[in-house]
Amino acid sequence: MQFETLAIVGVGLLGGSLGLAAKARGLAGRVVGVGRDPAKLATALELGAIDEAHAEIADAIPDADLVVVCTPVDLIPRHVREAAELAAPGCILTDVGSTKARIVAEVGNRLPAHVAFVGSHPMAGSEKKGPGHAVADLFVNRATIVTPTADSDPNAVERLKRFWEGVGSRVVTMSPEEHDRAVANVSHLPHAVAAALAGTVDPAYLPVSAGGFRDTTRIAAAAPAIWEPIFRTNRAEVLAGCARFAARFEEFRKLLEADDGPGLIRWLNEGKKVRDALGS
Amino acid sequence: MQFETLAIVGVGLLGGSLGLAAKARGLAGRVVGVGRDPAKLATALELGAIDEAHAEIADAIPDADLVVVCTPVDLIPRHVREAAELAAPGCILTDVGSTKARIVAEVGNRLPAHVAFVGSHPMAGSEKKGPGHAVADLFVNRATIVTPTADSDPNAVERLKRFWEGVGSRVVTMSPEEHDRAVANVSHLPHAVAAALAGTVDPAYLPVSAGGFRDTTRIAAAAPAIWEPIFRTNRAEVLAGCARFAARFEEFRKLLEADDGPGLIRWLNEGKKVRDALGS
Repeated sequence: MQFETLAIVGVGLLGGSLGLAAKARGLAGRVVGVGRDPAKLATALELGAIDEAHAEIADAIPDADLVVVCTPVDLIPRHVREAAELAAPGCILTDVGSTKARIVAEVGNRLPAHVAFVGSHPMAGSEKKGPGHAVADLFVNRATIVTPTADSDPNAVERLKRFWEGVGSRVVTMSPEEHDRAVANVSHLPHAVAAALAGTVDPAYLPVSAGGFRDTTRIAAAAPAIWEPIFRTNRAEVLAGCARFAARFEEFRKLLEADDGPGLIRWLNEGKKVRDALGS
Repeated sequence: MQFETLAIVGVGLLGGSLGLAAKARGLAGRVVGVGRDPAKLATALELGAIDEAHAEIADAIPDADLVVVCTPVDLIPRHVREAAELAAPGCILTDVGSTKARIVAEVGNRLPAHVAFVGSHPMAGSEKKGPGHAVADLFVNRATIVTPTADSDPNAVERLKRFWEGVGSRVVTMSPEEHDRAVANVSHLPHAVAAALAGTVDPAYLPVSAGGFRDTTRIAAAAPAIWEPIFRTNRAEVLAGCARFAARFEEFRKLLEADDGPGLIRWLNEGKKVRDALGS
């Protein structure tokens, strides 16, 4: 057991899965969930993702030695600060937000000295929502990026890394800024591209679509309310990615317009090489 | 049994799967394969996808009452014409090419009067290649588009539709031109987008990528030699799709640049609506 009491603020797909994983793997003695939606809390209790449910952060935090904030990225700084004010000495706080630089900067130096905050981002999730889709193995073999800064408590960083390894993930350490660049590449830009593609296609032709379209647009089904603040809190990196992608796509259009067979083969091979490096 | 002898010209993933499906479902008495690669033919024989293998079209066609040409789209018209010259009276010929207008136009009126050609396109496949990946259920619950013209023999069209239904697919009938517009939307444009995305991302960040990136770029692993002629034989429709997609993506970029939260939500919802209509 790594922690006596794990408090999870925001019991959706990620928070619920984290509770299931921590309990299944014996990482926490007790899991306390916080959320505003009684139906979600009831589902999480029923699934055994949490042992105890609260509507208010104030009621859940005082006993916790690990707090994980799993709310939308625009709410995370406030929730971390609220939790930190109430936390017992030695409590470690983290979050699972998809952007890190702004969160870490906003939380940064505003916390009481007796607690430690380090940002995290498990690269796990789904286009599905809510604790009803939670699974204990959501983090297995997925990367979790931990983003310490020069101010971070090294002991808290180590304990947090062990926790994420404990739920089955591979821990990668980056600065908050490098994290945001990395996920702009592999997550935020792909999301914008998939959503643009879904918004381009003539729905009349969906009945003849196949696996390629299904895969390429899958993440466009995700909740806009989750993604809007992700894009906005990683705006500069996503805009830079957009410019690179648009230029790359324009290369294709020009090659096809010129009916340039060898050029198209070369261009397709460049993309294939990257995708092949990832494996199926 | 719908046909005595099915000849498959080009025994790759699609041709091999078609042989397996036709035999598993008792649609053909005998399946004859044609290909230039002895290793592929040997694999197809071993898997039971074909009963007999030939290097030359001339040796495989005379007994066939159904010929399915499964070679790359740029070779299909020539292979159909070659097969048609040798085919017995009443033989039906089709192909599985991913574009149809050019193939149907090039084959069109140049065939002997005693055979019938109707274009087909099963919306099945994979980023994988070769008969080693062939499976008998590749066509199950997938759309197969059949593209008759005013000149098509109605009896041949009916028999061909029954054959595609026989291997498990849903048959949809379109003109060759409408087919090409449909697949530009749901297949060719998505392929270009996925390949552009794979070619944009910094490979250094692949280790922290997750399911979203994996899904969105999966088809970028497909063989460039297959896709280059697909794009080139559906050039006008793909270019039209590129222009629509680029405009749609630029909308996103501008909304993010303007930090327009409600606009981003609206834009994301428009894509989500299309993707939700497809189901998971």
